[in-house]
Amino acid sequence: MSITLAHIQEAHARIQPHIHQTPMMHSQQINKLLGCELYFKAENLQKVGAFKARGGCNAVFSMDDESLNKGVITHSSGNHGAALAWAAALRGATCTVVMPENAPQVKKQAVRGYGAKVIECIPTMADREAAVAAEIQATSSTLVHPYDNDAIIAGQGTAALETLEQMDNLPDIILAPVGGGGLLSGTAIVAHAIAKKAGTTIAVIGAEPQGASDAWQGFTSGQRVEQQTPDTIADGLRSTLGMRNFTIIREQVNAIVLASEPAIVEAMRLVWMRLKIIIEPSSAVCVAAVMENPEMFYGKRVAVILSGGNVDLDALPW
Amino acid sequence: MSITLAHIQEAHARIQPHIHQTPMMHSQQINKLLGCELYFKAENLQKVGAFKARGGCNAVFSMDDESLNKGVITHSSGNHGAALAWAAALRGATCTVVMPENAPQVKKQAVRGYGAKVIECIPTMADREAAVAAEIQATSSTLVHPYDNDAIIAGQGTAALETLEQMDNLPDIILAPVGGGGLLSGTAIVAHAIAKKAGTTIAVIGAEPQGASDAWQGFTSGQRVEQQTPDTIADGLRSTLGMRNFTIIREQVNAIVLASEPAIVEAMRLVWMRLKIIIEPSSAVCVAAVMENPEMFYGKRVAVILSGGNVDLDALPW
Repeated sequence: MSITLAHIQEAHARIQPHIHQTPMMHSQQINKLLGCELYFKAENLQKVGAFKARGGCNAVFSMDDESLNKGVITHSSGNHGAALAWAAALRGATCTVVMPENAPQVKKQAVRGYGAKVIECIPTMADREAAVAAEIQATSSTLVHPYDNDAIIAGQGTAALETLEQMDNLPDIILAPVGGGGLLSGTAIVAHAIAKKAGTTIAVIGAEPQGASDAWQGFTSGQRVEQQTPDTIADGLRSTLGMRNFTIIREQVNAIVLASEPAIVEAMRLVWMRLKIIIEPSSAVCVAAVMENPEMFYGKRVAVILSGGNVDLDALPW
Repeated sequence: MSITLAHIQEAHARIQPHIHQTPMMHSQQINKLLGCELYFKAENLQKVGAFKARGGCNAVFSMDDESLNKGVITHSSGNHGAALAWAAALRGATCTVVMPENAPQVKKQAVRGYGAKVIECIPTMADREAAVAAEIQATSSTLVHPYDNDAIIAGQGTAALETLEQMDNLPDIILAPVGGGGLLSGTAIVAHAIAKKAGTTIAVIGAEPQGASDAWQGFTSGQRVEQQTPDTIADGLRSTLGMRNFTIIREQVNAIVLASEPAIVEAMRLVWMRLKIIIEPSSAVCVAAVMENPEMFYGKRVAVILSGGNVDLDALPW
């Protein structure tokens, strides 16, 4: 199927009783510094501390009881695992998360805290997939892929939907980070459809770390990059773009811009200091991209999705 | 004059165009951990990063043009200086802030950033007051005391006013930190007046660091402590209770509870992790007081004013 605004609106109606409508925030000081008007969607204040709650909730609440009774499963080293565990618990379903054995203890604890079973595996993609396959064989549970999944993309798109509803006027640009591409593809579908209805346009831009630039490479070359060895502090963006995400992004995203590691740290600190909220490095990538590509944003009204706030407070990058 | 709910409502109408209506936040995980229902008023998201914007704005906007043309002055090592500078700039007035020479550079910069003049002095109360007196003599500017001032108390009371308006039901307890006593005295006036109108009661509790416990001592003995040597990480609460603040607090506050330094740090970290917002140690004192006095709060609905979020990110206490 091809995901439309209507699917995302349905997803929103489905998940609304369970998620937070997170606030929009802004800072005159940040605007002055960066030369544009930034409107931040604070998904770090979302359930489980990240927009991932939206996709996880939509996937679980889209399932029929029979499938759900067999449980859900995913592989994730981060926020998607916690989101799926949280959403499954809301419906009393069992959830299994395959996590690399070197994932941070705090993330394993979070997933277990929501009542899910954690299966540890060797941290390679092959091992992850083998562990998932074995578990599915044994339990007939349903795989909920972190981004290459229609229900997930529709769920993540609800963050942009709310953003555009919460703003007095539509922005010139909407900016979202890109890792596996769930958030960015949902955002693109929503933004273009809503802009079209309003007889205007919104440029949809993805922000990616230089150290995990597979989306930028694939977007530029037309050829999806299937493997990369990420080297970035933005742990939420180390994934490689999914298949259906790549297609949507190639068709509907206007640009992908890169951010350097020092800029990501500087941007993270800027947001902490000025907005007084805790964002994780993956969220800071958008702000860093604005810092390093000022000509694209100068004088524009820019909506920015701050994707999450799950940070190890004992390992801050400054 | 004696400050009433009506004064605080007038203050609210006066400052509302300039301040943020900060959100209420909550966390099921914090509630589970602490055994009560906590509703956090996020004044760390206020202009200048603290509730002090309310009092500063009310004081400046209560002045007539003639007085204002001669400027305003205060002494402050922290948020009140920034708040007064910010409010004065809104009306195009000059502002002078006397700051101890050992105040953090970042705070001096913040005050200068709002366009105020900083006069540095030796860090004793006598020297501060001498510097203020000399400047008033020279300029006839108006002193806006950080807490021992009716317009400031009425302004700070608007945080509690909004809190009670934003909650679906009135809380059993409202909890505010106490340093000089501006916030706590305004809070007490509002809470009792509104509870009375609703035919119920709200217990007003102040939270204070053990290392700067002058309010607790004065409250207990009936004798205001006029000097102390504070030793606490909660830099916003190192002041000694003001005269009129002491009177209001003695008459209208139900209890003052103390928090230890380790609990303040633990509480600060808990709020950062669970609410994903940055609060300063002074705000954490309320949460620490709940941790260390569970019997007072068990099963209760408790509104907590998180006073501010101005923290030196290079000197975190963990």
